[in-house]
Order: sequence, then C-alpha cells, then structure tokens
Amino acid sequence: MKIAQVAPLTEAVPPKLYGGTERIVSYLTDQLAELGHEVTLFASGDSVTKATLESVWPCALRLDSSMRDYLAAHIVMLEQVARRSDEFDIVHLHVDYLGYPILQRTNTPFLATLHGRLDLPELAPLYEMFDEVPVVSISDSQREPLPHAAYIATVPHGIPARLLLPGFGAGGYLAFLGRISPEKAPDAAIRIAAAAGILLKIAAKVDNVDRQYFAERIEPMLGAAHVEFIGEIADDEKGEFLGNAAGLLFPIAWREPFGLVMIEAMACGTPVIAFRNGSVPEVVDNGVTGFIVDDEDEAAAATRELRGLDRARIRRVFEERFTARRMAEDYLTIYRRLIARGQPLQQAV
Amino acid sequence: MKIAQVAPLTEAVPPKLYGGTERIVSYLTDQLAELGHEVTLFASGDSVTKATLESVWPCALRLDSSMRDYLAAHIVMLEQVARRSDEFDIVHLHVDYLGYPILQRTNTPFLATLHGRLDLPELAPLYEMFDEVPVVSISDSQREPLPHAAYIATVPHGIPARLLLPGFGAGGYLAFLGRISPEKAPDAAIRIAAAAGILLKIAAKVDNVDRQYFAERIEPMLGAAHVEFIGEIADDEKGEFLGNAAGLLFPIAWREPFGLVMIEAMACGTPVIAFRNGSVPEVVDNGVTGFIVDDEDEAAAATRELRGLDRARIRRVFEERFTARRMAEDYLTIYRRLIARGQPLQQAV
Repeated sequence: MKIAQVAPLTEAVPPKLYGGTERIVSYLTDQLAELGHEVTLFASGDSVTKATLESVWPCALRLDSSMRDYLAAHIVMLEQVARRSDEFDIVHLHVDYLGYPILQRTNTPFLATLHGRLDLPELAPLYEMFDEVPVVSISDSQREPLPHAAYIATVPHGIPARLLLPGFGAGGYLAFLGRISPEKAPDAAIRIAAAAGILLKIAAKVDNVDRQYFAERIEPMLGAAHVEFIGEIADDEKGEFLGNAAGLLFPIAWREPFGLVMIEAMACGTPVIAFRNGSVPEVVDNGVTGFIVDDEDEAAAATRELRGLDRARIRRVFEERFTARRMAEDYLTIYRRLIARGQPLQQAV
Repeated sequence: MKIAQVAPLTEAVPPKLYGGTERIVSYLTDQLAELGHEVTLFASGDSVTKATLESVWPCALRLDSSMRDYLAAHIVMLEQVARRSDEFDIVHLHVDYLGYPILQRTNTPFLATLHGRLDLPELAPLYEMFDEVPVVSISDSQREPLPHAAYIATVPHGIPARLLLPGFGAGGYLAFLGRISPEKAPDAAIRIAAAAGILLKIAAKVDNVDRQYFAERIEPMLGAAHVEFIGEIADDEKGEFLGNAAGLLFPIAWREPFGLVMIEAMACGTPVIAFRNGSVPEVVDNGVTGFIVDDEDEAAAATRELRGLDRARIRRVFEERFTARRMAEDYLTIYRRLIARGQPLQQAV
C-alpha cells in the first residue's frame, strides 16, 4: 500500500526528547515500512525513519529559534502533500484539523488521528463543518466532549515491542515521567509518595509555559527527602528509569487522551497507579497491570499492593494490546476500509 | 461584480478599538458596496457593514476569553468561503496565507492583500510554493524582504473621505497615536517633544505582549511635564485628537508596511514628522504633508517648520491619494484584471 504519513514539524520524528505525537508517528511509520508498505513520511528534515523521508523543513521548528510562526511551515507541508496526493493510496494526517479543507479537495482518501484534547470550544463548529472527515480517536473517552465528529475507530497507541525491555523493579522507587504541568499533577505524585513512605524519582520536562507553575508550586516541594528530581530524560534512558521502578504514578488531573507513559511502564513490566480520568480505565487493567484509584489516599494505599502484581504478566498484556505492530495492523484495516469506499469524500460535499 | 471579502476574525469589522487590517477591510467593503457592487463580507458576527455580512463566528475572537485557538475559526471561515466560491466573481483574502491552498482548489479567481511584515524567515519558502497566488502589497517597501511573491500591484490604504475632517491644529501639541511597542518607538517621540519643548499627547494601546516594555521603558518617562498619556482612544475621538495637533510624530523603528495613522493625520490636515523607514517615503511628501527625518535631532528641528506647511493643502493631498474611494477603485481594476484571466489559477499548478 502507498501510504503518506503527515507529522507535525514542531519536533523531529522521532522527537529528540519529549513529543508524544511525533513519537507515535515514528513508531507507526517504521512499523508500516517493516510490514512491506511503501510509506512516505512528511516531517522535519532531522527526522529518522525507515520510510521515505520527505523533508519539509530543514529541522524541527522547536529547535529553530528564528521561527516565530509555526503555521507557515505546516501550510507548506500540506500543500506539498496535496500536490503529490495522487501518488498515494491513503494520506494519514497527524496535524489536527489543519489539512481537512486541503485534503478534502484531492482525489485521495485520507484520515486524521486526533492526538490531543477535544474539549476546546472552537472544535465543535469545526467538526460540524468537517463532519465527513474520517477521524480516529486514541481512546473512547477522548471523544466525549466532541461526540459528533466522524469517528471511524479508536486506535490505542502502541510502541515497538523491543523498545523497552522488562525490568525487575529493583530500584524499589516510584516513578513520575512526563511534563511538569497542572494536568499531570506532579504535586499529587509527591504527596502520594510521601504518604506511602517511598522514594519518588521525577523525570520531567518543564515547558516555558509551565515555568511559573514549576517555580511556584513544584520546586518548593522538591527539597523533601523522599523526592529526587532528575529533569528531562532521553528515550534511551527510559527503559532503565521505568524498569527499575516498583511502580509508575500517574495521578492525572485532566481528561488524558491516551497517556503514553502508562504503556511504556507496562512494557517494562512496571505496574501503574493511575487516577480514574480520561483514557485510564481503557489502558490499565485494574489489579492486573496496575491500580485505578480515585484519590491520593487510595493511591498511597495501592503502593502497598504493587508487589502482589506479576511483572511478567504486565509485560504480556503490553505485548498483546499495546505494541506498534498491533497499532499498525489496526490502521491498515482502516486504510483498506477507506480505500474500498473508492470515491473521495469531496464528492459528497 | 460579486465580491467576497474575507476578514480576520480577531477583531470585528470595523474593530471596536485598535485593529488595522479589520479597519481597512471595513472601509474597502463599505466603499465597494456604495459603488453598487454585490459584496459579501466574511467576518465575526459583531461586525457592521453595508455589504452582506456572513457571520462566521458570533463575536470577535479577541473578545471571547474562552477561545484559546484562533486557527480553528479561520479554517471554518475559509472552508465556508471555498464551498460558496462559485457564487462570487472574485474572492479577496485579508487573512495572510492561510487561504491559499484552499482557494487555489476552487474555480474562482482570488487575491490576497498582505497587511503585515514580510521579513519573517518562514515566509520565503511559503511564497516559493505559492508563487502563482496574486498578492497586493500595501507599499513598495513592504516587498523588499520577500521579492519573489507574485505581486500584482501596490495599493496604498485609504480611509473614507469624511471619516476625519480637517482641524486647525489649535491645541498646538504633538500627537503620538498607535500601539506602545518598540517598533512604534514612543520613547523617541517623548525625547523629540522634550527637545522641541512642545507638549506631547500619547493616545496608545498597550497589548499584553508589550506590557513589560511599557512598564520598564515607557511608564518611567510619562512623569515628564511635557507628556500627557491618555490611553487607547476610540475611532470617534481620533478626529479631535489629530485635528487639534500641530503635528503627528511617527518615529518608527521598523520597516512599517504602511502606517495608517499617517494618512489619518493628513485627513485632519495635520502634518507628519516621520522617520525614513518602510513605507514612509511613499506616504509623506517631504515639505508638503510633513517631514521625513533621519534622527531625533532632525525631528525636533522639523517641529519648528510645521507652521510653514499648509494644512488645507495636506487635506487636499489626502483627498487625492488616500481615500477609501481611490483604494476601492484600485482594487476594482485588479479584480477585473484577474477575472479577465478567465481561468482559475489551479489549472496552472
């Protein structure tokens, strides 16, 4: 199958450090290429892929301090995709809604995976207008604020089976991995670890937009004896960080669309203690791959149950449900269905 | 002629307060309607126009604090324009490049007026890609950083002939009108007025992005006896503010694309002392409608020559060169030329 993958240009594919969407696009693209498909990846020029890279911009926009307007580069990319669309059987967008009006006017079927939150007020009228664009949610929960988009499937994320190998939790600590932001609630993680009396290691990026939150709310808590803040870590440090942890704390304070770090922990055999919010009940099997809790007290109590879980079984659940191979096969089924529809969507407009 | 005007949704058309692009779109749209054309204005629902208003969003986005993402609303608007494009002889975009890939795939000729600065690095590759989209610059100087776009004309801005009436400069003060920002250099205006020994009245908006600049650089200068800061003023206060001034100071510190306030002053018969930068030499007739100067000393010296200029003649130059009527007629000539090309541009792609 001739497949175009259209990635955001903000980070490279895969991203050098944090960047959830670009990471998933990388896993999907490489897996599709490994399965023998002819894949073209539209992405920044510093991307690395097993597919054919179409370099739209020399480097990831976040690394180019001269760039003030990220939109122009994305418009250039989408125009390139549209001009070449006849070369592809299917175009898969990962850049939100920006490509809809353009791709809708080509002759190639396309779809979009919605990687972000859908509860923003501006999205409702947009999806009323583009009510025939086939979109994929990354959890069923993600759809709730925007029920009337033309969902064709939920495809949970997946990561390469051998990217993160099982660990034994020998470090005995609790892990927090992600952005420092109110939604990710690192403060809750610190309080939970304190109540449990267990060391918490925090590996986290601080975005500019969250600097004030970090300085005012989190930094003052980092002096506690049970907290170790190790900053942003690279992909190749994650396996050790997660594999040595007794458990991952995911005390999420928003409707998390997916929560990639949960399946990264599971790949390491590491159980997850997560708040019941967003995608969590769809990702964590309560009592098997971790514990779904409703407050910090329950979370602290759950830490005492972590040893009762079977890390080998957690790894097996990961292999069954959350590999890039499974994700790629899910998408291939969708691609075939859209191609079988035969006619481009614009005919119906 | 059936004309679609596509305005930004950030401010209403016309804007309640500051908002250069939306103001020009309003003047142009109303003038075209007065000339008997069938004009449809795509804009926010709180806009007021002599054309047919197509309300894309209930109110101006800047006034809707729930809006975090202005892009979605603009995409909705452009899709509406595209779906209705067969109803129009010509589509005139005022929303930068966002509409190019969409409108290029319709059967209706279109053009874009470039209202902003063109020296951003991301624009060069964009205009290489869209090298057949006919664009209008608002001064010749504006083109310099981006010489290879498909310019079809320069159309200087115009304002309604009777919007601002001639005044006599009876207040004797110097006026500064615009945003408080480093590019507009209110600090230079304050120093020039001090050197000239003349009262300076500053009517200016402070954007959030400029709050720090205002607090650190400008606010400490406002205590001077010769400075009066009167904040943001509404459209209907401008005539009095400018008409009573002996001169307008426009000590611009960037490549100003047009500088609407210069022709607003001229409409009041008020001469302009402006730095030689950007559009200034194209707008000010040196020694007739004001003085073009190279530094603050020259500006202060020029204040002594203001009385030698003929305010009635300044008003006449305004009426000849900078009315909305002249602007509308310029655009009608361009519309006719593009319509005469007959075939939509996409055929050539």
